[in-house]
Amino acid sequence: MTTLTQQLQEKIDLKTKPLAALGRLELLALQIGLAQNSLTPQLHHPAILTFAADHGIAAIGVSAYPSAVTVQMVLNFLKGGAAINVFCRQHGITLQVIDAGVNFNFGPQDQLIHAKAGMGTRNFLHEEAMTGEQLQYCFKQGAAMVDQQAEKGCNIIGIGEMGIGNTSSASLLMSCLTGLPLVTCVGKGTGLNEDQLKSKLNTLTQAKNNHAAPTNALDALRCFGGFEIAQMCSAMLKAYEHHMIIMVDGFIASVAYLCAVSIDPNISLNTIFCHQSDEHGHKILLEYLKADPLLYLSMRVGEGTGCAMAYPLIESAVRFLKEMASFESAGISQLTPQNL
Amino acid sequence: MTTLTQQLQEKIDLKTKPLAALGRLELLALQIGLAQNSLTPQLHHPAILTFAADHGIAAIGVSAYPSAVTVQMVLNFLKGGAAINVFCRQHGITLQVIDAGVNFNFGPQDQLIHAKAGMGTRNFLHEEAMTGEQLQYCFKQGAAMVDQQAEKGCNIIGIGEMGIGNTSSASLLMSCLTGLPLVTCVGKGTGLNEDQLKSKLNTLTQAKNNHAAPTNALDALRCFGGFEIAQMCSAMLKAYEHHMIIMVDGFIASVAYLCAVSIDPNISLNTIFCHQSDEHGHKILLEYLKADPLLYLSMRVGEGTGCAMAYPLIESAVRFLKEMASFESAGISQLTPQNL
Repeated sequence: MTTLTQQLQEKIDLKTKPLAALGRLELLALQIGLAQNSLTPQLHHPAILTFAADHGIAAIGVSAYPSAVTVQMVLNFLKGGAAINVFCRQHGITLQVIDAGVNFNFGPQDQLIHAKAGMGTRNFLHEEAMTGEQLQYCFKQGAAMVDQQAEKGCNIIGIGEMGIGNTSSASLLMSCLTGLPLVTCVGKGTGLNEDQLKSKLNTLTQAKNNHAAPTNALDALRCFGGFEIAQMCSAMLKAYEHHMIIMVDGFIASVAYLCAVSIDPNISLNTIFCHQSDEHGHKILLEYLKADPLLYLSMRVGEGTGCAMAYPLIESAVRFLKEMASFESAGISQLTPQNL
Repeated sequence: MTTLTQQLQEKIDLKTKPLAALGRLELLALQIGLAQNSLTPQLHHPAILTFAADHGIAAIGVSAYPSAVTVQMVLNFLKGGAAINVFCRQHGITLQVIDAGVNFNFGPQDQLIHAKAGMGTRNFLHEEAMTGEQLQYCFKQGAAMVDQQAEKGCNIIGIGEMGIGNTSSASLLMSCLTGLPLVTCVGKGTGLNEDQLKSKLNTLTQAKNNHAAPTNALDALRCFGGFEIAQMCSAMLKAYEHHMIIMVDGFIASVAYLCAVSIDPNISLNTIFCHQSDEHGHKILLEYLKADPLLYLSMRVGEGTGCAMAYPLIESAVRFLKEMASFESAGISQLTPQNL
């Protein structure tokens, strides 16, 4: 009896191309086939969830932008003017923006899901970023967002974010959960200069010292997390339960993944890392995770943009598996691998 | 008076994102705007030309596949079953297959352009691969293929190939035109083992020694070229004349570019390197050309597949420039670069 892995590999190998010549696409086809438990995997209703929230730490100058920009960018998403809107439109991807805890009352907005855990986190320099109840609420909401997409037939989902100050939160989470020194995990975010970067590192070092070391991902999220990062973590766990393919965006999303995979290591089976961003800690985190992203485009915009850009490559993997002729169907006898 | 470069850069910088945060996409948007002499560049009727031909050298075992596979793969292209067909369909790219000199009489075929310079090149181990007349014919035909696409409104064109034995031809051309030793330029092609690779290198070393060193790209093409490589070179030169964006595929296409850019250095302005293949010499050639490809997917299938895979990224660059809101249009005052 042959396993599904063997059957998928044979199907890939009999396509009209030199053995293994489609490189990464072949690995993707195998991964998606296994995730869907199918020799004929398909992608349906691709969606990207962009979780937005504010961060108490932003009040003390760890970002090149003021917190008000989180609100403004959410409004920009809702009007369709941001990068993620453009790329989702290009590829027919549903974009769902979630208010996980922005410091603004948006009122009723058709295109925005309200899942507000608070008006931004507390400043973790002085106290824990969120309460246990808020963390629990975030996990409930993150999972619910994925359930909603699953009901619509979505089986591939990208997880992105927007939140001024969230590289600070992500850097602390990364340092706590990997054991890597903070200096390795902290970067320029959306555009700090060298002096500002030093100041950010000092602030985060103080913050880390002001708390007992978290003992697990949930502790770490409560202490240093953003509401959006907690919801992203929960969304990834739920997506795996639904057998979805999980597209991970940039640095923040990779940190949410780091939290999620520490809770359920199996989610790695369904996860595709889409883009290595220019944020300092991201390359190091991807190496730590043994993750090989599909794209290296020097972007550092978040929002889920890396997922949107990588989606056509993932689609190509499924398409070649379905549409390419085999040696037999194309009548190419000389090309069978045995004769190589 | 501001230059178009300045105007494009300002337009890019005023989009609702941190400065330079779209990375490679911003460089592409600038390049395409300049190539089209426009602040609002657009891509029309994307096309990929796949030039196929046979090689006399293939008779003596430099490839993992027999020459007959060139014919079979061309027939596979015409039936829509190859990788390049799948990816062109996915992205709405017109695929044009050209018989530049396959050793087979295809007869009338709607989907195939007959531009046959011969029934394959001569074996360059013993004599020049083609006559001066054949080379001239190839240049005429390669240009004509691009003219035809230009007439249809195409302004972005990918250049790919199929031809058993053509990595041998490409390696010799690369060595002659860069001055790099042959061992640096020779690789496993579609799947040689170590012993076969040694034998290929020996054969190509002999071939190189059996001819006077070519003094320019035309000489080199006549001596070691494939009909498809000569037509690809000419196609690139003509595409630049039409102000098209030129998408360069893998190793063979990059060698055709190496020939073309030595004839008209300006074509670099309009050229986008799409994919770094796993063929040994390709990375080295791209470094020599100071080229930074968009994708690294470990593919080595040729056909123009790298162009097809990269096309959505190029389209994204044009789309963000057109569709993204500016700080002003989105009402985001705090985000203006001056306030960073």
